[in-house]
Amino acid sequence: MHLVAIGGSDAGISAALRAREFDPKTEVTVVVADRFPNFSICGIPYYVSGEVTHWSNLAHRTIADLEDAGMTLRLDTVAFAIDAENRKVQVRDVNNLEVAIPYDGLVVGTGAVSVRPPIDGIDGIDGEKCLDETDGVHLLHSMGDTFAIMKTLEESSPASALIVGAGYIGLEMAEALIARGLEVTQIEQLTEVLPTVDSEIGSLVNTELAENGVGVITGTRVTSITQAATGSKARLEVQAVSERGSTKIFADMVLVVVGVRPDAELAASCGVETKPNGAIIVDKQMRTNLPGIWAAGDCVVTHHRLLGETYLPLGTTAHKQGRVAGENALGGSREFAGSMGTQVVKIFDSVAARTGLRDSEARTVGFDPVTVASQADDHKAYYPGSNRISIRYTGDRVTRRLLGVQLFGNRRAEIAKRIDIAATAIFNEMRIDDISDLDLSYTPPLGCPWDAMQVGAEAWVRARN
Amino acid sequence: MHLVAIGGSDAGISAALRAREFDPKTEVTVVVADRFPNFSICGIPYYVSGEVTHWSNLAHRTIADLEDAGMTLRLDTVAFAIDAENRKVQVRDVNNLEVAIPYDGLVVGTGAVSVRPPIDGIDGIDGEKCLDETDGVHLLHSMGDTFAIMKTLEESSPASALIVGAGYIGLEMAEALIARGLEVTQIEQLTEVLPTVDSEIGSLVNTELAENGVGVITGTRVTSITQAATGSKARLEVQAVSERGSTKIFADMVLVVVGVRPDAELAASCGVETKPNGAIIVDKQMRTNLPGIWAAGDCVVTHHRLLGETYLPLGTTAHKQGRVAGENALGGSREFAGSMGTQVVKIFDSVAARTGLRDSEARTVGFDPVTVASQADDHKAYYPGSNRISIRYTGDRVTRRLLGVQLFGNRRAEIAKRIDIAATAIFNEMRIDDISDLDLSYTPPLGCPWDAMQVGAEAWVRARN
Repeated sequence: MHLVAIGGSDAGISAALRAREFDPKTEVTVVVADRFPNFSICGIPYYVSGEVTHWSNLAHRTIADLEDAGMTLRLDTVAFAIDAENRKVQVRDVNNLEVAIPYDGLVVGTGAVSVRPPIDGIDGIDGEKCLDETDGVHLLHSMGDTFAIMKTLEESSPASALIVGAGYIGLEMAEALIARGLEVTQIEQLTEVLPTVDSEIGSLVNTELAENGVGVITGTRVTSITQAATGSKARLEVQAVSERGSTKIFADMVLVVVGVRPDAELAASCGVETKPNGAIIVDKQMRTNLPGIWAAGDCVVTHHRLLGETYLPLGTTAHKQGRVAGENALGGSREFAGSMGTQVVKIFDSVAARTGLRDSEARTVGFDPVTVASQADDHKAYYPGSNRISIRYTGDRVTRRLLGVQLFGNRRAEIAKRIDIAATAIFNEMRIDDISDLDLSYTPPLGCPWDAMQVGAEAWVRARN
Repeated sequence: MHLVAIGGSDAGISAALRAREFDPKTEVTVVVADRFPNFSICGIPYYVSGEVTHWSNLAHRTIADLEDAGMTLRLDTVAFAIDAENRKVQVRDVNNLEVAIPYDGLVVGTGAVSVRPPIDGIDGIDGEKCLDETDGVHLLHSMGDTFAIMKTLEESSPASALIVGAGYIGLEMAEALIARGLEVTQIEQLTEVLPTVDSEIGSLVNTELAENGVGVITGTRVTSITQAATGSKARLEVQAVSERGSTKIFADMVLVVVGVRPDAELAASCGVETKPNGAIIVDKQMRTNLPGIWAAGDCVVTHHRLLGETYLPLGTTAHKQGRVAGENALGGSREFAGSMGTQVVKIFDSVAARTGLRDSEARTVGFDPVTVASQADDHKAYYPGSNRISIRYTGDRVTRRLLGVQLFGNRRAEIAKRIDIAATAIFNEMRIDDISDLDLSYTPPLGCPWDAMQVGAEAWVRARN
């Protein structure tokens, strides 16, 4: 039995590790396009900020660890064709040597690529040459992108940066570049930063950014990036438009982080079915339409416990899906239990988190959602260091089922694990009324007799009654 | 409708608040033995340490808050008899004035009193005069006890303290007295400190105490406390015995904190049924055997979701039971959902927590428990400030049901809310195998792609398979 995984990130490596664990006799090969298998992409901002002192520390496991686990790594090797009928993957290595690797089971974990938005100067639509890293214009998704950013930072010593996009990575990069002493402006097309949470929470994130010196511009779309005129103080000139008119922003570097799209062309070209957005269609067993081919991670559709089939690429999900694919490719029948869209982000001294559905999302799948906002202390206010947590509970008006929770508070307020209490409750389909029955822990330095999560639930119940 | 609650702590006040919320027309009277209704007893160590600067800050709500909520408080008033047939409570106020208060519904929330262990000098069994606060020998359960301790600290300036008992309050008081500059010795009769967790976790707590300068003596029972001979450096002389022989310890003050027992004599004397340990027998609706009388908090038996009927007095439980009693006394039919024994304690820079059952407890109710220890990082090790968490998962060998979790780690490691993830999972009767399916939050500064709770579950699954 020979399992081949294409992709050296979370999905491919998880599949390989699980296969070796499930059946230590299995031969496992992982085809890795670069030299950085099993890297923590989520950690890149902390390398850029300097908090992670060397890029190699971002590896979840070293190459030696992975080889010790019994997998063969083919680094700097690109898979360029899949022969599904004869079960072979065509690869080209760093020396341009082409080889066909036979497989019994194949796990496609080719991940995602950065979205290149329709901005003059970087989309190349009109045939013009795109600005790139050498001009100080960056995307960010891979270690290669990371090294390019570090090169710009170290060689050009930019004084200012514009970050296009205020999602998770955009926010983390704003913090990283502030830590490096740059003047940072963050620009978001939608009306509030962190659009994956309600604008009431986004607005708190906005304040945290502003208080830490990030210039925040919302409701404004970048239309073009050009090299600034000779003699200009900054290197790049950015045009943007909003309802209020147009704006010109100068910056020495621009970072475009507006999301990712599935990288599934290789699989699609051999007959694997994909969605219109390019995501590979898999069932809950991570099986594609072709025999012998499984897929996992950022390149596939996401089964969501509440939304059904969607696209929500996250590292945690890729890890889980990879394990399912790795086991099933060896004859198992595990099912991916489904995402709930649980996410958390630290922004300077604050943390924002969400799990489950927001009002608008809940409505799309037929729920009758009500969202109620409240506040509670993370621990007894009489004990030093207490902080208020902003809470939003979303539940179904009729069934009173807990659908989603959003939180914002200080980084010491245990927001991340509080959102996980909600994730566990939603996983088990609890009613909001029953949250107060949970026997949660209490000691004055770390909690309250009714935990913030219960105060939020009670607020929902009171507003609903 | 007139509801009377006896007891101004968590149970009585929660009952009163819930009654007013449930039916704002209800007349509610709370009989409070001292002047400190709704005080946070759990916060006392932080007042003694100086972290809470004034004792009045320990009030969950002020007297004005409580009165605004619509209840009548009778402070410094002792209920000394219940006439269950005629529905009257006999009370005696601070001026020795006796009054009968008629009620339609009565909630008994008389709480618990400190256990006075069989130690010569404090148990008074042989008719001798007990040593008391004036001699520097203290119990700790009430605000009165607290003021006595503060008086000793301020007026006698003790250089050393011996704490008898190493449960939650004993540990917190050790920290508090170290913070005040005393030399502190902690003595525990059982083989390890914090006997409510497995000794492997207790041993980590022991190390934390020792590293912070607390002298820890385990497996040693105090047999007598006497005033030290004239001219002795310390004020008190304590005799203790262990398997290894006997020990003599000198200290300027002794704090005896070895647990509490139900304070239910008042209810028992009017015909309310109690257990041999003195706890009032209530059903899940917090109803006693007598019509019109409910009871809640530290004076009643505890319905435990896994153990059935037990005695486990905790503030969180008293709050929940009080609300149930307050609503049901007005005609409701709520049920207390049951304790799971969730507890957390901060010891200097560490936190220990537990929920559910330990091996030994699980065995008593017919489970076939297996406990597996593991360790995991609280967040990605490459991000500064990461800490290892010690984890113990207990599950049923056959059904694989999650029965209990114990955690120990740094106070910044979100231990308290991680134990609550387990509490939520146990509440929903999850199998340990399914913990890894939970969509828990991840960002490198606050977590790992597989959270520590999932690493612990996987360790159990691997060991069990």
